[in-house]
Amino acid sequence: MRKERKELSEEIAGGVTAPKGFTAAGVHCGVKKSRKDLAILYSERPARCAALFTANRVAAAPVILDRELLTRSDLMRAVVVNSGNANACTGERGMRDAREMASAAAAALGVPAGQVLVSSTGVIGKYLPMESIRGGILEGAKALAPGGGADAAEAIMTTDTFVKQAAFRIEIDGTIVTLGGMAKGSGMIAPNMATMLAFVATDAAIDGPALRAMLKSAADRSFNRITVDGDTSTNDMVALFANGRAGNAEIRSADEGSGAVFLAALERLLVRLSKMIVTDGEGATKLIEIRVTGAASEEAAALAARAVANSNLVKTAIHGEDANWGRILAAVGYSGISFAPEEVEIFFDRVPILRRNYNIDFSEEEAARALAKKEVAITIRLNQGSASAVFWTCDLSKEYVAINANYRS
Amino acid sequence: MRKERKELSEEIAGGVTAPKGFTAAGVHCGVKKSRKDLAILYSERPARCAALFTANRVAAAPVILDRELLTRSDLMRAVVVNSGNANACTGERGMRDAREMASAAAAALGVPAGQVLVSSTGVIGKYLPMESIRGGILEGAKALAPGGGADAAEAIMTTDTFVKQAAFRIEIDGTIVTLGGMAKGSGMIAPNMATMLAFVATDAAIDGPALRAMLKSAADRSFNRITVDGDTSTNDMVALFANGRAGNAEIRSADEGSGAVFLAALERLLVRLSKMIVTDGEGATKLIEIRVTGAASEEAAALAARAVANSNLVKTAIHGEDANWGRILAAVGYSGISFAPEEVEIFFDRVPILRRNYNIDFSEEEAARALAKKEVAITIRLNQGSASAVFWTCDLSKEYVAINANYRS
Repeated sequence: MRKERKELSEEIAGGVTAPKGFTAAGVHCGVKKSRKDLAILYSERPARCAALFTANRVAAAPVILDRELLTRSDLMRAVVVNSGNANACTGERGMRDAREMASAAAAALGVPAGQVLVSSTGVIGKYLPMESIRGGILEGAKALAPGGGADAAEAIMTTDTFVKQAAFRIEIDGTIVTLGGMAKGSGMIAPNMATMLAFVATDAAIDGPALRAMLKSAADRSFNRITVDGDTSTNDMVALFANGRAGNAEIRSADEGSGAVFLAALERLLVRLSKMIVTDGEGATKLIEIRVTGAASEEAAALAARAVANSNLVKTAIHGEDANWGRILAAVGYSGISFAPEEVEIFFDRVPILRRNYNIDFSEEEAARALAKKEVAITIRLNQGSASAVFWTCDLSKEYVAINANYRS
Repeated sequence: MRKERKELSEEIAGGVTAPKGFTAAGVHCGVKKSRKDLAILYSERPARCAALFTANRVAAAPVILDRELLTRSDLMRAVVVNSGNANACTGERGMRDAREMASAAAAALGVPAGQVLVSSTGVIGKYLPMESIRGGILEGAKALAPGGGADAAEAIMTTDTFVKQAAFRIEIDGTIVTLGGMAKGSGMIAPNMATMLAFVATDAAIDGPALRAMLKSAADRSFNRITVDGDTSTNDMVALFANGRAGNAEIRSADEGSGAVFLAALERLLVRLSKMIVTDGEGATKLIEIRVTGAASEEAAALAARAVANSNLVKTAIHGEDANWGRILAAVGYSGISFAPEEVEIFFDRVPILRRNYNIDFSEEEAARALAKKEVAITIRLNQGSASAVFWTCDLSKEYVAINANYRS
């Protein structure tokens, strides 16, 4: 069951360079026609790094390379990211290009080879234009700045329509600690960490096992709880860098004391970025929050919420502001969980639409008001236990089809 | 592995009343405003019946009732079907209404109670207008005719845009046997028999176990291999009635001799109906056939084909006639099967798009010609074994969104 936690974190302006000791840049190098397409995030000192990668069996070259680098050492100095080309399904040449991208960045930044991660997003099956990438890395390395977070966030965008960044501040044992992050992703967002790019930095000191555990835990309740179209991509990753510049006593546990405080803030940051991604879902006009409560377990609640979030029929109904609770109940029905349909209650905002024993004596007017909002909250009470889970998705519009019918061209 | 079979069946005109000893009717009774909304299929003598029902945990009242009736006896005389109202999520009153619908039909037809199945399709969560249903049953029983199959097929339609029926004839040990069927379904079509209505009649004599085994086997390779939007509904069912009027020696095995011949014809009939359903997918402009070959097992092939068939990104790309093989490969990648991406080959019709080692040196012109067709055939060779499976789906268009954004209204 999800515990209620007092929020100890404060949201502040900025993004991935809000924490001390990080600089970033975003430049245009020519992978895309005219928009920014290369980002560098740099830590002034070696940062402990944890990362999660796509669950797709078809993993792009940068994903393969990063996994390899992180098995050797979890101390990293930078990540270099290009948008416009995914360097996926590019075979041996793609692997060589990814390695060269990493080594060119290490040389430009004057850091040891093996301490720079790489990441790519965009079209699948085309070779990286390495001339452009090399130029972009040199330019980006020169442009690194403490205020460069927004440029970097812009440079990792593909079909995104707005820059996604956020930052939070917490106090740990009297020390101010900052977390900031940037993300991209609008289509192909789905559970299983196979879905988008996010780079998060913090000046907290955290040991490797705690860092990895906290990233996994927070991602499971944020990036793994959003879906735009159920598809998962070949490239996507979330990386968390902790450089210790805040000067706190090193966090060594994800569960207690300062670790619990940090984890709560990290989850809040990742949820914030996740909701931005869903809000920017291709063709989306509404953010839909699906909360399943009263489940036998958090796993069951998440399964049910995911089935509803992935239902094209639910997503189109919400798009049309139609209080079609039947499609919601049917989606829970095929989610694979065990439950008693006649016990289920469904609310839009706080408006009860379906009550126990299929009582559907609701006010269409109140339902219409709840559905007219830009953020639609659906609560599904299973009334069989006390566990819950939240999923976020967006509506499915004609615009989604228009965007995706001709992505390559 | 799917075996190649010599086709011993011949397609003939007609539908569910093509076999001897079946009559049907389709009338308008007032569930819908003006279109036909009540169908009866009647067998002049008790017919052996096998049926498959939705896998959705939220099962509509008629599904609950039919399951109960079939556990008591598999000899049936008729099925009565209404469209426009699903009688789903209607609680105890819904169960009473389903029972009354069955008993009213039994009375009107002069057959024992318990020998009439019921079925409903349409909007969820509204009570059946029983006055209209009662009137429709009386009218339908009077209108029963050997040529009534087309009217019945029309009366079970909801958002369907055309009548779906087909019939085949085979020779079994010198006896002519006929199979005919009708189906409905355009949205909410997905695997696991949770998806549509189909009623199939044959004048063959078949014993219960063989009939059930053959229906399961044929449905697994037809209705369970189609998908429109991945959603599964609360109501859907497939029922097969065999009344023995052809006079053949009773078929007692699904695997050998006359059983194998009958099964091949049944699979052909169900595939024909399945493809009609997909062709009529809401907003569909293209039928997409996805054939996965060279898999380690038929299960793996079906899993991969299903993931591709359910991918919104693939379906929109095909809608836009975009040779986006990357999305196809990515969908196989998250299907859960084990395979080597660099071994995969993808063809549109016979045009190789992706060859081993990510060789994508294909002709955009040839690809465009293959994609411009109304029926797009995608073949995915995994090159790891000898099993295969076929799935059928349709493209995802703006029209799908328009239809589903306001279904209730």
